Amino acid sequence: MYAVDDLVRYAVGLSPGSLPEDVKDVAKRAILDTLGVCLVGSRSDSGAILLKELPFLGNAPGQATVFGTAVKTSPTAAALVNGTNGHAYDFDDVQREMQGHPSVGIVPAVLALGEALGVSGETVLAGYVAGVESDVVLGKVMNPGHYARGWHATCTIGTLGATLAAARVAGLSHEQALRALGVAGSLACGIQANFGTMTKPLHAGMTAWNGVFAASLAKLGWTANPGFFENKVGYLAAFGSQMGASALSGFVGKEFATRTLQFKKYPSAAETHPPIEAALKIWRKHKPDLSQIEEVDCLVNGLTDQVCAYLVPKEPLEGKFSVPYCVAYALVHGEVGMKAFMPEGFKDEAVQALVRKTKKSLAFKEVLPAFGPAEVHVRLRDGTVLVGREEADKAGPLEWDDVIVKFRDCAAGVISREAAEKTVSTVRHLESVKDIRELTALLAG
Amino acid sequence: MYAVDDLVRYAVGLSPGSLPEDVKDVAKRAILDTLGVCLVGSRSDSGAILLKELPFLGNAPGQATVFGTAVKTSPTAAALVNGTNGHAYDFDDVQREMQGHPSVGIVPAVLALGEALGVSGETVLAGYVAGVESDVVLGKVMNPGHYARGWHATCTIGTLGATLAAARVAGLSHEQALRALGVAGSLACGIQANFGTMTKPLHAGMTAWNGVFAASLAKLGWTANPGFFENKVGYLAAFGSQMGASALSGFVGKEFATRTLQFKKYPSAAETHPPIEAALKIWRKHKPDLSQIEEVDCLVNGLTDQVCAYLVPKEPLEGKFSVPYCVAYALVHGEVGMKAFMPEGFKDEAVQALVRKTKKSLAFKEVLPAFGPAEVHVRLRDGTVLVGREEADKAGPLEWDDVIVKFRDCAAGVISREAAEKTVSTVRHLESVKDIRELTALLAG
Repeated sequence: MYAVDDLVRYAVGLSPGSLPEDVKDVAKRAILDTLGVCLVGSRSDSGAILLKELPFLGNAPGQATVFGTAVKTSPTAAALVNGTNGHAYDFDDVQREMQGHPSVGIVPAVLALGEALGVSGETVLAGYVAGVESDVVLGKVMNPGHYARGWHATCTIGTLGATLAAARVAGLSHEQALRALGVAGSLACGIQANFGTMTKPLHAGMTAWNGVFAASLAKLGWTANPGFFENKVGYLAAFGSQMGASALSGFVGKEFATRTLQFKKYPSAAETHPPIEAALKIWRKHKPDLSQIEEVDCLVNGLTDQVCAYLVPKEPLEGKFSVPYCVAYALVHGEVGMKAFMPEGFKDEAVQALVRKTKKSLAFKEVLPAFGPAEVHVRLRDGTVLVGREEADKAGPLEWDDVIVKFRDCAAGVISREAAEKTVSTVRHLESVKDIRELTALLAG
Repeated sequence: MYAVDDLVRYAVGLSPGSLPEDVKDVAKRAILDTLGVCLVGSRSDSGAILLKELPFLGNAPGQATVFGTAVKTSPTAAALVNGTNGHAYDFDDVQREMQGHPSVGIVPAVLALGEALGVSGETVLAGYVAGVESDVVLGKVMNPGHYARGWHATCTIGTLGATLAAARVAGLSHEQALRALGVAGSLACGIQANFGTMTKPLHAGMTAWNGVFAASLAKLGWTANPGFFENKVGYLAAFGSQMGASALSGFVGKEFATRTLQFKKYPSAAETHPPIEAALKIWRKHKPDLSQIEEVDCLVNGLTDQVCAYLVPKEPLEGKFSVPYCVAYALVHGEVGMKAFMPEGFKDEAVQALVRKTKKSLAFKEVLPAFGPAEVHVRLRDGTVLVGREEADKAGPLEWDDVIVKFRDCAAGVISREAAEKTVSTVRHLESVKDIRELTALLAG
C-alpha cells in the first residue's frame, strides 16, 4: 500500500459516465477557456522564441499541433509550447487549494498525447477532470507549507496532476500509473523567484511536458518507486508539505473540486480583478462622464496592495499589475480585454489621463485571498461619490456566454472565425467527439 | 551584482589556453570514460525503452547522435537519452563535494549541443571543464544540507553545471548565461526516493536535457531572474543549502576540481570498490587456490555496510550492491568488469560457491566516505589468513591505460573496434579536432 494508491486508483479509473452533468459542463468551459489563452499566447514574444527553439526541442513531423501555428511536432514538445503559451499572459484559470494554475498544465498535456494516440473526446474529458481533482487533493496536503518554501505549485504539484491526466488518456493500468507518478515526482520543478519573467509561463509548459513524458515512459515499462511520495527522501520531504502522506487518501474522491476553478475574466493579475469588478459596477450603473471625474480611489486588501505595485505603469506588462491602470481602463471602456494590454490599447489617452487621477489605498485587513475584497470610489466635480464594491473571493468558473466571448477575443486573428466557432461547438459537445483530432485540427493557425 | 555573477563569468570565460596540461588531460580521460558508459548503457533495458520513447520525445532527423545507435534526433532528446544511458549501470564518475555524478550530465549536453552547432574540440573541452568546476563550487555551498533533504545532486546541482557547460559551448554572453542559469534554477529536479529504479539514471538524462534547453532558450532571448539563486523564494531557499549565497563567489576559480573526479574502475556501487581493491591485492600477490579457501571476511565502513545490503544476490543488479559477490568475483577472476554483471557472468559457479563462504562485517567507525576504507581476510584450510587492505578515499581519475581498457570493454559490440580505437585517439587529441562531429560520427552504432 503506497500513499498515492487511492489517488492513482481514482484518477485512472475515472469514467466520464460517473461525472455529474454540471462537473462535465465546468470542465468543458475550462477546456475552451484554456484553448483561448493558448491561442493568444502563441502570438506573445515568448511564443515566438519557442517556435525558434523547436528544432532544438524535437521538431518531429506529424504528431501533435502547436496551437495557433501550422507546426506539428512531438507530443512532449507540443505540450511544452502550448502550456507555456497558455500561461504567457497569466489569463488562465487558478484554484485556491492548489495555489496554482491547474488547466494550463493539463489541457496541453491531454491534447498533445490524445492527438498522438487519437483518443475520443470522452477520454480527454475524463483525463482533464482526473488531473484537476488530483491537483486539488495534492494541494490540500502540500499547502500552504509547500508554497511558502518558494515552490511554484503550478509545476511542482501540477506535474503530478498532469501525469495522472495523461495516464488516464493513455489508458495506463494502476501499476503503470503508479510508476508514471513516481517518474513525475522526479521531474517536478519550478521556483517562484522566476515570477515576472518568461520562465514563469515555462513552468506551465514543463508541467505539460512532464505529464506526457512520465506517462508515455511508464507505459513502455520505465520503473520508478511507487513509494516516492512518503519515502523519507521522497517528494513530501524534499518539497515540504503541510500534512503527512497519510492525509492524502482522506481527500480523494470526496467532492468534485473542478467546480471550484476560478476563471479569469480579465487578462491581468488575479488581484486586479476585484477592483475591476467594482469599477465595472459603477460603469454599468452610471456610465460616468470622464470629464467630470476629479479623483478615483481604489480600496484594496493586503495581497492586492503587495502584488500590484505599479501606480503609473510604463508598459503593458506593468499594466497587468497596476490597479489604477486596470480600473481606469474599466471606467473608460466598460470592459478589460486583451486589447487593454496590447501596445495600441495601452496608449489610449483617455485611460492614461484617468490613471493619473487614480490612487490605490490599503483598506482591508484581509491579506488573502487573491480575489478581493475591493471598493472603487469615483469622486465627481460636483462632490458626488460613486461607489462600487466587490466582496472577497467571488470568482468562479465563467458561464458559457462569458467563456465564449473571452475565447473569441483570444482566438481573433490567430485562427479563422469559422474555426473559432467550430471549436466552441466541438468543445461544448466534447463527449460526442470520436477522435480528438477533430478538435486539434481546428486549432492549427 | 547577483550571487552567481562570478561563477557565470568564470564559466563562460573559461579558455582552453588557460587550463593546465594535467587538468586538460584529466578532462579528456573523463570524457572518454563517460562515452564508454554511454555506449554500454545504450544496450541496457532502459536504453531500449528510451528508443521506443523517442517518437514522443522529439525524433527530429539529422542533428544529434544517440550514441551506440543509428538514430539522430533533436539535441535535447539526444542529451536526455545519452545522459540516461550513461548512468544506467552506475559506472560513471562521481565527485565528493558535489555528492553526485558530474560528467554524465555534462558530456552528453556539450556533445549534443556541440554536434548541432558544429563547434571545435577545444570548445567542448572548455565547456566540459566549466561544467565540472561549476558543479563542485555549487556542491560546496549546498552540501551536505541539500543532499540531506532528499535531493539527488546529480540533477539538482548538475543542471546548473550542465547549463553553464552548454552556455560555454554555445558561446553565450554573460547576460545570456545569467538568464540561462535562471531558467536552469526552475528546471532542476530529482528525488533520492527513486534510487534503485530506472528513474535514477533518468535524473542524469534530465540534467543534460535541462542544460541544452536552458542555454539554447536563453540564447534566443528567453528571460529569467538572474537573482534566482539568492532570492528569498529562490533556488537556495527551495532546495536547502548548507551555506548562504554569499559563500559562492569565494569558491569560484580557486582550484581545478576537475582533478578531484573519482572514476569507477568497476561497474558496481562506489561502496563496493574498496573491498574489491583489497581482494585484488590478495589475488595479485597470492592467486589463492579456490579449493583451499575456507572463509572470506570483508571488513567495511558504515556507508558500505548500509548501501550494500545484499549478501547472496539473486540477480546481477543486486550483485552491484553486494560486497560478497564483488569480492568473490575479484578473487576468482582477478578483475571485475561489465561481464560480472551480465546474466552469464553472474551464473559463474566458482563465484557463486565462493559467495556462500563470504561474509561482510562492519569494522570501521567512519560512516563516510563512499570509497572506503576496507579490508578483506581470506582464511585458508591450513589456517593461513591472507589480508588485503584499501585505505579510505583512494579513488581518483583513472590513468589513460585503465581508462582505455574500460572504454574498450564498454564499447565492445556496440561500435566497431576500429571506431572505438579512433574514438580513443580523437578524445586524446581533442584540442586539435576542428568540428566535434568528427567525434560524434564515431559514436553512432
